[in-house]
Amino acid sequence: MIAFPLRRATNIHWQALKIDKAARALLNDQKPCILWFTGLSGAGKSTFADLVEQRLHELGRRTILLDGDNVRHGLNRDLGFSEEDRVENIRRVAEVAKLMVEAGLIVLVSFISPFRSERRMARDLVDADEFVEIYVDTPIEICERRDPKGLYKLARSGKLPNLTGLGSSYEPPEFPEIVIDGGLKAPEVLAEQILRFLEEKIGLEKVSTGET
Amino acid sequence: MIAFPLRRATNIHWQALKIDKAARALLNDQKPCILWFTGLSGAGKSTFADLVEQRLHELGRRTILLDGDNVRHGLNRDLGFSEEDRVENIRRVAEVAKLMVEAGLIVLVSFISPFRSERRMARDLVDADEFVEIYVDTPIEICERRDPKGLYKLARSGKLPNLTGLGSSYEPPEFPEIVIDGGLKAPEVLAEQILRFLEEKIGLEKVSTGET
Repeated sequence: MIAFPLRRATNIHWQALKIDKAARALLNDQKPCILWFTGLSGAGKSTFADLVEQRLHELGRRTILLDGDNVRHGLNRDLGFSEEDRVENIRRVAEVAKLMVEAGLIVLVSFISPFRSERRMARDLVDADEFVEIYVDTPIEICERRDPKGLYKLARSGKLPNLTGLGSSYEPPEFPEIVIDGGLKAPEVLAEQILRFLEEKIGLEKVSTGET
Repeated sequence: MIAFPLRRATNIHWQALKIDKAARALLNDQKPCILWFTGLSGAGKSTFADLVEQRLHELGRRTILLDGDNVRHGLNRDLGFSEEDRVENIRRVAEVAKLMVEAGLIVLVSFISPFRSERRMARDLVDADEFVEIYVDTPIEICERRDPKGLYKLARSGKLPNLTGLGSSYEPPEFPEIVIDGGLKAPEVLAEQILRFLEEKIGLEKVSTGET
């Protein structure tokens, strides 16, 4: 007897399993994680996050960068800068970062995130090896000299009472995975330091990137 | 004269451009978009979304599925079911979906999303060709017979006054990209219909999938 297999839609093979984080990570050939940049305004967080993302992208990594620009103007546009709203701001960012880790991505988060408790909450949302806290430890004098958004000037003139580092406190990380002195060297050199750490931590070199 | 190029960190080449949606889409070799499943409770939205994601994953597509389970218990866990909270629920999901489109992903969203205005808001957040509204149009009698979460039974007994379709209205899409009758055929057959539409709409077959 000869079988005549029908090729109909009803015969299509469907996987039994839902697609989960492990499946997406395997497809992306990378370890999903959160790179959490914390530090004062003007410390260089976004500059470093940008540079690190560019370098990861060159290596074929799937990334996304969450910062004030794309979160405060969208998802968190209903939030202000009261302490309650700042906590909610970070809570939502952390939850979105967690969803993006489930999507198999390397998620770069660049927020001042001044309070230890918020950063701990973010860390506790994902697995222990999925959270890399990067403390951009730039002296406030240098941050104020740069003042890229004019916030320190506003604060000194009394128009911005809650600026982190002046009117509002910044709690430095106690056990960050990485500390970089954002005032010391060229951003490219410091970004490369972060990359070297990540090479060891998340094995950038261990996966095939399609590069020679 | 012989040049002796220095191989130092300061000589590393950095791209001039930030990584954006186009760069991430190119790396993923796919068109990022939102597949928005709307319909009554029990219509089959999550079943279809699951099946479509499995199939896309088999084709090498980078996907994420947002549904009540991973959003209501995390990002939106502060929200209830008042009309105001339901609107905020969908607003946040839409904003997260937009961020995930920026990440280069195909985002499957499975929410009842009963109101036209909410779905329009979600659609308007992204480019016109990035939003695919999939109306899972299952007769309420069938949804109630299935009642996978026991919600219809609760509503009939008066314990759930706001269930969509009974105590609260569902506004059917006027111009959805896809309509499927979720009560008519096997879910696998209907999911395949969606896939065929997507093949034409977002060109699943046009990109290299690594399959033969």
